[in-house]
Amino acid sequence: MAKAAKKIAARITAKVTKRAKQITVFLMDVDGTITNGGVTLLSLPDGSAQEIKTFDAHDGQGLSLAHTAGIRTGVITGRGSAALQHRAKELKIEFVYEHQAQKIAAYEEILKKTGASESMVAYLGDDLPDITIMRRVGLAVAVGDAAPEVKRIAHHVTRAIGGKGAAREVVELILKSKGIWEEMIDKARA
Amino acid sequence: MAKAAKKIAARITAKVTKRAKQITVFLMDVDGTITNGGVTLLSLPDGSAQEIKTFDAHDGQGLSLAHTAGIRTGVITGRGSAALQHRAKELKIEFVYEHQAQKIAAYEEILKKTGASESMVAYLGDDLPDITIMRRVGLAVAVGDAAPEVKRIAHHVTRAIGGKGAAREVVELILKSKGIWEEMIDKARA
Amino acid sequence: MAKAAKKIAARITAKVTKRAKQITVFLMDVDGTITNGGVTLLSLPDGSAQEIKTFDAHDGQGLSLAHTAGIRTGVITGRGSAALQHRAKELKIEFVYEHQAQKIAAYEEILKKTGASESMVAYLGDDLPDITIMRRVGLAVAVGDAAPEVKRIAHHVTRAIGGKGAAREVVELILKSKGIWEEMIDKARA
Amino acid sequence: MAKAAKKIAARITAKVTKRAKQITVFLMDVDGTITNGGVTLLSLPDGSAQEIKTFDAHDGQGLSLAHTAGIRTGVITGRGSAALQHRAKELKIEFVYEHQAQKIAAYEEILKKTGASESMVAYLGDDLPDITIMRRVGLAVAVGDAAPEVKRIAHHVTRAIGGKGAAREVVELILKSKGIWEEMIDKARA
Repeated sequence: MAKAAKKIAARITAKVTKRAKQITVFLMDVDGTITNGGVTLLSLPDGSAQEIKTFDAHDGQGLSLAHTAGIRTGVITGRGSAALQHRAKELKIEFVYEHQAQKIAAYEEILKKTGASESMVAYLGDDLPDITIMRRVGLAVAVGDAAPEVKRIAHHVTRAIGGKGAAREVVELILKSKGIWEEMIDKARA
Repeated sequence: MAKAAKKIAARITAKVTKRAKQITVFLMDVDGTITNGGVTLLSLPDGSAQEIKTFDAHDGQGLSLAHTAGIRTGVITGRGSAALQHRAKELKIEFVYEHQAQKIAAYEEILKKTGASESMVAYLGDDLPDITIMRRVGLAVAVGDAAPEVKRIAHHVTRAIGGKGAAREVVELILKSKGIWEEMIDKARA
Repeated sequence: MAKAAKKIAARITAKVTKRAKQITVFLMDVDGTITNGGVTLLSLPDGSAQEIKTFDAHDGQGLSLAHTAGIRTGVITGRGSAALQHRAKELKIEFVYEHQAQKIAAYEEILKKTGASESMVAYLGDDLPDITIMRRVGLAVAVGDAAPEVKRIAHHVTRAIGGKGAAREVVELILKSKGIWEEMIDKARA
Repeated sequence: MAKAAKKIAARITAKVTKRAKQITVFLMDVDGTITNGGVTLLSLPDGSAQEIKTFDAHDGQGLSLAHTAGIRTGVITGRGSAALQHRAKELKIEFVYEHQAQKIAAYEEILKKTGASESMVAYLGDDLPDITIMRRVGLAVAVGDAAPEVKRIAHHVTRAIGGKGAAREVVELILKSKGIWEEMIDKARA
């Protein structure tokens, strides 16, 4: 195993590995979690503004591996945009909940739809509205630049900051805990 | 309290806390303060150019908490764009002054409208045109990458750079000084 | 030679120089390799989304030097966009293969078209789908922030991260190994 | 004087100050110099691509101060875009030369138009095509992340990287060398 990979492994406790092993559903916040937290707006001549979102290619590759491994994925966000819908479709993210001021209702609906118990769900977040869900799921992960309040209650904090590979890191954590990472990377597609 | 939070608290002097406690109005510059200072322009086929602005999701969450706590907010900027108007509306920022080559007139108008004394006003800025207002307000804060001249006259300098959580840090400073931060984070919405 | 240049030279082994000397064809992945890995989407009013890609001016200058030196270049990517086509045309990149879920077919077609042996081909990549080609080419280079699995099998890792001069660094490596870098920089055009 | 300001002053040699004192014309490259070097393209539905450029608010403020002080400014670039034209107009940059594969002709035309001797001209650049002009001007400055070949022949290298305040730093250097910086900052407008 390369030095960089060992270093990550070293930070992952046995407790976290045990939690990750159970995961079958991986849910994520959007802004600041699978984007870098920039809220980017293009001014249009008619006085309106259109939203630009920047996702991460490595995260995308990671989510594809998760799907290949049978993990179901979803996003729950307070905002909404065609950009997110486009990216979610492209990556085949199954659950897309937009405009959720309180995220807990969407979370519970996903629990029902998947039939998963809470110990089977992982959630990746970065800010205060993520805390309620993170207190309930089996594996609560905060991105590297999450708010202190979020890091404090997370089971694990990624080395990557939001929008720069944090979701990829969670997928790697889950698949390695299940012992199927090596098998999945041979199936990687561009 | 988590280590990261303690570290911030350590840097905040008793004098700054005392000033922050008085604040009821929080005013901000825009470019380089609640954006990263990039002036981004999209070329259009007709030879015109449209402005793109990148705000910060954590700043947005912070301003929502400020509003929940009854703090009134405003922006004063030398530029202007549909992007800013859209973001200000979305975040329910009350005062939006664009195209202000000299910012002091807008500042004085806000003083009149709110009836606040200058000791009740906080201002967050990054560059030379912010200095005049910053010399008058109760709490003058410079972003982490402000011009040296601005940092020199500020009561406090944020750890975050402009457009990467500096406004959030000011809100946290104000609400913690008032002893209502913990109460507000329980009310956070996405 | 300046200090910075020496430092780069120091990291390049004799083995890598020998490989680089043979190169006549330089192929690249796109996202995360000649872009920073951001997948940026603009929401449009009709609900569709358009892709924005950010390339690097220094990479562009490097590829121009490569062309002046007679090196043939190409890109192979799983995605596709007008932005990439525009940039490739502008830089006179000869081979542009988009929408390649498996990259190996495109690679083999380029081998046929150029008549180059595999030892004459360099490939720059950042993630799992690049590995198959990288195991075959004469000079396999990973960008500075490539996935650990990619760095592990590369002959060389650039100091620059993807989209921030990694391609330029490879061109410099090839032209210096051939002893024609100094000659080429005198021919640089804006 | 603040600590940060002293530190900058310490790096500026007497020789550079002497050169800066003579400057009446300040010319700049664009990509990688007054932008961060990203070549950003938006894909449009008709298959064309439009250019997005990101300038810096601090640079803009600096150029305004330069104009107030009577310094004439210009840009010479190998590319061209409505975004650049818009920004140049907004900042009242006098000379705008686009699509200059060889930059020297534009440089000589500006010399004629201004009647300035070469010792009165400062030039800020980042890459190989800037070298020819930089070998002739009175004050040749490289941005902090310029190519090694450019840094090597520059009289001065800025602490800031391209597109993040390098032009502002040059203006500050010139105005401080002339002893008029303090006077100018009092005239700053947003």
